[in-house]
Amino acid sequence: MSDSMAPLDDLISHLQRLPTIGPRTARRLALHLLQRDRDAAAGLATALSGAIASLHLCRQCRQLAADDYCGICSDSARHQGRVCVVETLDDLLGIEQSGVFDGRYFVLNGALSPLDGIGPAELAIPDLLAQVEPGRIEEVILALSLEVEGEATARYLLNHLPDSVPVTRLAQGVPMGSSLSRMDPMTLGRAVSARVPVDRGDAQ
Amino acid sequence: MSDSMAPLDDLISHLQRLPTIGPRTARRLALHLLQRDRDAAAGLATALSGAIASLHLCRQCRQLAADDYCGICSDSARHQGRVCVVETLDDLLGIEQSGVFDGRYFVLNGALSPLDGIGPAELAIPDLLAQVEPGRIEEVILALSLEVEGEATARYLLNHLPDSVPVTRLAQGVPMGSSLSRMDPMTLGRAVSARVPVDRGDAQ
Repeated sequence: MSDSMAPLDDLISHLQRLPTIGPRTARRLALHLLQRDRDAAAGLATALSGAIASLHLCRQCRQLAADDYCGICSDSARHQGRVCVVETLDDLLGIEQSGVFDGRYFVLNGALSPLDGIGPAELAIPDLLAQVEPGRIEEVILALSLEVEGEATARYLLNHLPDSVPVTRLAQGVPMGSSLSRMDPMTLGRAVSARVPVDRGDAQ
Repeated sequence: MSDSMAPLDDLISHLQRLPTIGPRTARRLALHLLQRDRDAAAGLATALSGAIASLHLCRQCRQLAADDYCGICSDSARHQGRVCVVETLDDLLGIEQSGVFDGRYFVLNGALSPLDGIGPAELAIPDLLAQVEPGRIEEVILALSLEVEGEATARYLLNHLPDSVPVTRLAQGVPMGSSLSRMDPMTLGRAVSARVPVDRGDAQ
């Protein structure tokens, strides 16, 4: 029976390559798909093939796009010389929802993590550096996470981006709607150091 | 951008149908597959389509099989009149590994759980009942889990199997290699009630 079950083992080993899916979960998912919910299995295979075929990485910014270039990179109303570097598509969508940014993006699809085998090449950082020609790019905004990997990625980029191109990063401080008692001391410290004068005209 | 992303949403909703995969995990897996590891995505789609195409449910016992009937159901050396009812393929494989059973199986691929919408039809219990013709089947062995769903399934089967067909269930007691202090009282109670005389000839 073992030989005829090769397609099952093949499916299990492919499921196991997914993040957070271990051997036991992979086996359980495979048996569920093949025994309990074969319609869902066929639907998933079709959805996956369809998404691979119709969605690509934008040639410029590496976000998911239906064409060679995404809607933002091909939008002449967006400031193409202002590049916001983000780790994930969700980070990009969050900034888009804020509605305050008129430039374009570069999506790393991750952050530097040498122990996991994620170096600059895996994040296409050479592509980003090649895009940042002084004169053509007037600002690079680092919108990276404030975790170890994000900080390491920011440091790497600061060391490799041309000195003549201004680099900014997101303001750090206390997030909207949060209670100070739940903030960690480092966030509070940075918020105090970066305190800004209040314009009395804004108050009621 | 929302329209062109329809294949992404489609993939996310299919991933969400899998057990233990919630909306956030589904989104993370989809973005991982499409942005970070497109080779894995293509491999998974192929493995899934391949497994669906080449593995079916055995027409008699509903375990995964490469042909219409599985190796056990088509093996004339196996006692086809002795049917062991199990919840999962893994349970079947466990009993096969023990090497003590010479009959065939019926795999429910689950257990009764009305709250989750799993009734007799979802487990193909009508098929099982149709197979159990008095005279043709001489024993039905219930090898179901000793959890609420397994017990409910056993009770349902006992009420619906023909009275003239003997039904047995697995012996209950203390498992091999286990310490009595770690057993729950119900298991200990059943083990005491079902105590068996010791053959003095077995002792050294």
